[in-house]
This record gives sequence, structure tokens and C-alpha cells, in this order.
Amino acid sequence: VILIDGRPQAHISVLDRGLAYGDGVFRTMLARAGAVRSWPRHFHKLHADCLALDIECPAEGVLAADMREILRVEPDCVLKIIVTRGCGGRGYAPPFAPESTRIVAAFPLPRLRPDAVTVGVRVRWCSTRLSIQPALAGVKHLCRLENVLARAEWTDPGIAEGLMLDTEGRVIEGTMSNLFLLERGQWVTPDLSGCGVAGVQRDRLMALLAASGASCAVERIAPARVMAADLLLLVNSVIGVWWISRLEERHWQPGDLVGPIAQRLEQGDD
Amino acid sequence: VILIDGRPQAHISVLDRGLAYGDGVFRTMLARAGAVRSWPRHFHKLHADCLALDIECPAEGVLAADMREILRVEPDCVLKIIVTRGCGGRGYAPPFAPESTRIVAAFPLPRLRPDAVTVGVRVRWCSTRLSIQPALAGVKHLCRLENVLARAEWTDPGIAEGLMLDTEGRVIEGTMSNLFLLERGQWVTPDLSGCGVAGVQRDRLMALLAASGASCAVERIAPARVMAADLLLLVNSVIGVWWISRLEERHWQPGDLVGPIAQRLEQGDD
Repeated sequence: VILIDGRPQAHISVLDRGLAYGDGVFRTMLARAGAVRSWPRHFHKLHADCLALDIECPAEGVLAADMREILRVEPDCVLKIIVTRGCGGRGYAPPFAPESTRIVAAFPLPRLRPDAVTVGVRVRWCSTRLSIQPALAGVKHLCRLENVLARAEWTDPGIAEGLMLDTEGRVIEGTMSNLFLLERGQWVTPDLSGCGVAGVQRDRLMALLAASGASCAVERIAPARVMAADLLLLVNSVIGVWWISRLEERHWQPGDLVGPIAQRLEQGDD
Repeated sequence: VILIDGRPQAHISVLDRGLAYGDGVFRTMLARAGAVRSWPRHFHKLHADCLALDIECPAEGVLAADMREILRVEPDCVLKIIVTRGCGGRGYAPPFAPESTRIVAAFPLPRLRPDAVTVGVRVRWCSTRLSIQPALAGVKHLCRLENVLARAEWTDPGIAEGLMLDTEGRVIEGTMSNLFLLERGQWVTPDLSGCGVAGVQRDRLMALLAASGASCAVERIAPARVMAADLLLLVNSVIGVWWISRLEERHWQPGDLVGPIAQRLEQGDD
């Protein structure tokens, strides 16, 4: 089921700037039993990302109405929202009075790895780097070729995710997830002021850690620190949380922290 | 007039990866009296850009047939070709056997500044920087948010173009054009191995300079060199060639080189 500007349709104009220039933003969310997980956080992030690009964000109520219509048909799904700057003529200059396009679409739930919490996931290093662009860092915009090229580096279904460095060699994130390291009892997550997507689930885990008295530092992180960490977590709004059991030739055990974190992220309604 | 995969239509699937991820490439070309200027060069570049992203490029004859159909109706226009990786499910991983989407569209000729050759154009520096990504440098892909943000920095119609630096402060290009400097009789154009779009008109001007015995160096260029240059040219396939008459507070005169260069680029059929 797909709604474009509130109407059931599946095609957009080829003049839409989302296609022409990647001139838009998006969100990917989990819906269960007709409810979108962490919707207030997702809307807040969508709004902030639109603001970063000076795109008019649809009102919360308008998007919520679109989602309700879709969730009546597909109560359990992955919901994707795309907001673009709308149609324009040829040329990079934004139209004088652009009308943004909103797309809300349901996708099937992925076959989630049922053993992700107990067995963990295997990941790899990607050779595709993330370029450094502070003006767009953190924003989930439509220009995602680097993620596409990184994800195209492997086809082995046994590898769940790839970790990406920026062009200066610092660890930033997974191709579709944010990374957390546990180092001698201290949580750390990569600084995203130069590149990367600051996901909602990353915010949620940082808030959860803070609420439980375990702060999380935001730092520039070299690959060697990842290899030496005591525990590595990957999070996004669809997978929830994964722990890394293997990265190249290094293996990890989950310890007793992963279960409670996964449970609290799953059950929390923030 | 717009053809998508050879059929007259103006809408593409919202599942197309060109929209979802900027996962595609494009060309913008000038057509006069039913003929596309420098088509062999444009097809060669389109093919190379598809190869860089591992996207299947439509055959030359297929694109030529699309263009003939459009040019029968609109013999004088700006032609745009977009090739995307085609539709896919959700997720960055390219589909197992993607079928690329081809879009060929005609746009009205821009109101070209009739005085560009005699009077020159005024340009500015943009504050939006180009990020450095050697894996995508030179490729005219659909992820163009940096160009959009740079072009959105000014609305004064008296300013024809903005010059962009990379995140390390080197001069790369205009938002929609390539730059050439003349320094004490020596032509120089910015090195695009880190970012920027290597346009067909840039190739043509370099070839023209070489053929006339005046080589063109490709170098890393600091902004101060631009301000100190004896002559600055901007080129793209639609505008042809512009000379810069003013950049911030510095003014230039065209000398006697611009007219012949403009004429030879305009008349050449390479």
C-alpha cells in the first residue's frame, strides 16, 4: 500500500526533485499491531531533517492520517516515509514556492534473525568510505549512493551488516545501522558531526543508557578500538538491536547486557 | 515530452532506486534542429558513469531511438537522460538482477544570456562545500544535494553561477559548470579526482585547447589563484561557454580569446 500526497498511487512525476537530485529525506519505521514504534521521535527527526534542507515538512497530523489508512490494511509492516522538495523545472535552484511531496509506503516485515539476540550477527568492514560533509551529516537524506556501494560489496547472507569508515579512516556506522561500543564498562558511539545518519534508535539507546546511569560518550573512533571493544551493538528502528558475534577474525560473546537492552528497547514506548 | 523505458509517460514507481537512494546517473544535452550536440561523447560518459556504479547502461541505439521520437516533436530543446538501477525492494542491497530504468525528457531551451560572450557573467563563491569521495568523483550521479544547497544560496538573477570549493578548500567547479583559468598564457582546470562532475564540455574544451597547441593543466587550485587569473571560463553542454566578468569585487575583461573559443565549441561537431 502506497499513498502519495494522501492518494493511493504508486508513481511520482519524473520531474520530482527527489528523483532528479536526491532532494529529500526519509524515515523507516516499524509498525506492530497498527502502531508505529517511536512515532514522536521519528516525526521530530523528519521535521529536523526537512529543516536542515529547507524543505517544508508535512504536518504531523497529515502524516499520521496517511499512516492510519495504511495500517488498517497492513497493521504489521515496515513503514517508509519520503518527503521531497516536490516538482520543479530543470536546474538545481529550488523552485520559488516548492510544494513538497510526501510518500508513505508499507513494506513487508523483514525475516528478522530470530537468533540475533542469542547468537549475534557476523559483520564485515566495507571498503567504501563515507565522505565528510558537515552540512548534511546526521540527516537521512535521499543521497545514499555510498550506502548502496558499501552494501553491494558482499552478497554472503551469513554477513548481516558492514561497518563503514569515513574518508579520514574513522569508524562511523553500519550501512543501515548505528554502532555502539562497550569499552571496560564505558559505552561509546561514533561522532556523526562529519557524516553518517543519526538514527532514532541511536537516540533511544543513548537515552536508555543515560536513564540507567550508564552514560554514552560520543567520540571519534579508530577501527582498532572497535576490534578491541568488549561488546559491539548495532541498532536501527527495524532490527532493534543486534550484537556482533564476529567481525573479520575476531569473535565476541554477548555477556549479560544484551538481553536487558534488547528487551527495554523493544518494550519502551518512547 | 517524456519517455520512460521507451513509452510516453511522466511517472515512475516510487520503488525506483533513483528516487529511494539517488541510485542512478544523468546527462543534460543541447538539441538543435533535431540533432543532439556531442552525442557520442555524452553516450560515452553515460556508459562510463553507469559502469562506475555497476548499473546496466541502455544500448546506444535504444537511447538514440528514444531521442529521435522526442526530437520529432521538439527539435530544439534541452534533453535529459536519467538511468537508474531500477526498482527494488526496501534496503540498500542492489537487487539480484536489476533492470535499469531509462528516462528521456525534453525541456525548453533556457533563455540564454545573449550577451554572455560579449559582456560576460557575474559569479559568486558558494559557502556550501563539495565533500571528497574518490569513489564517485567525476560521475554525474543523482545524489546532488550539495549542488542544490549551493545553488539555493542566492536568488539574485544578476548572478549567473556560484563557484564551489571542496571541504579542504580547493576550487572544484561551478554548481552546474566546469571552470577553466588562464594564468599567464597557461590554461588550467581543477583536478576532479576527489569530487566534482567531469562534464562533456570540459572534455571538449580540453581537446580544443590541445588541438590548437595550447595544453591545459589539471591541478589542485586554491581560491587565490582564481582571483588572480587573467581569464576565467565556465562551460557546460547547455550554456556552451561563459567568461566571468565579475567575481566578488574583482572584474575581468574578455580579451580576444573568448570569441574564437565560443565559436569553435559552438561549431565543432565532436
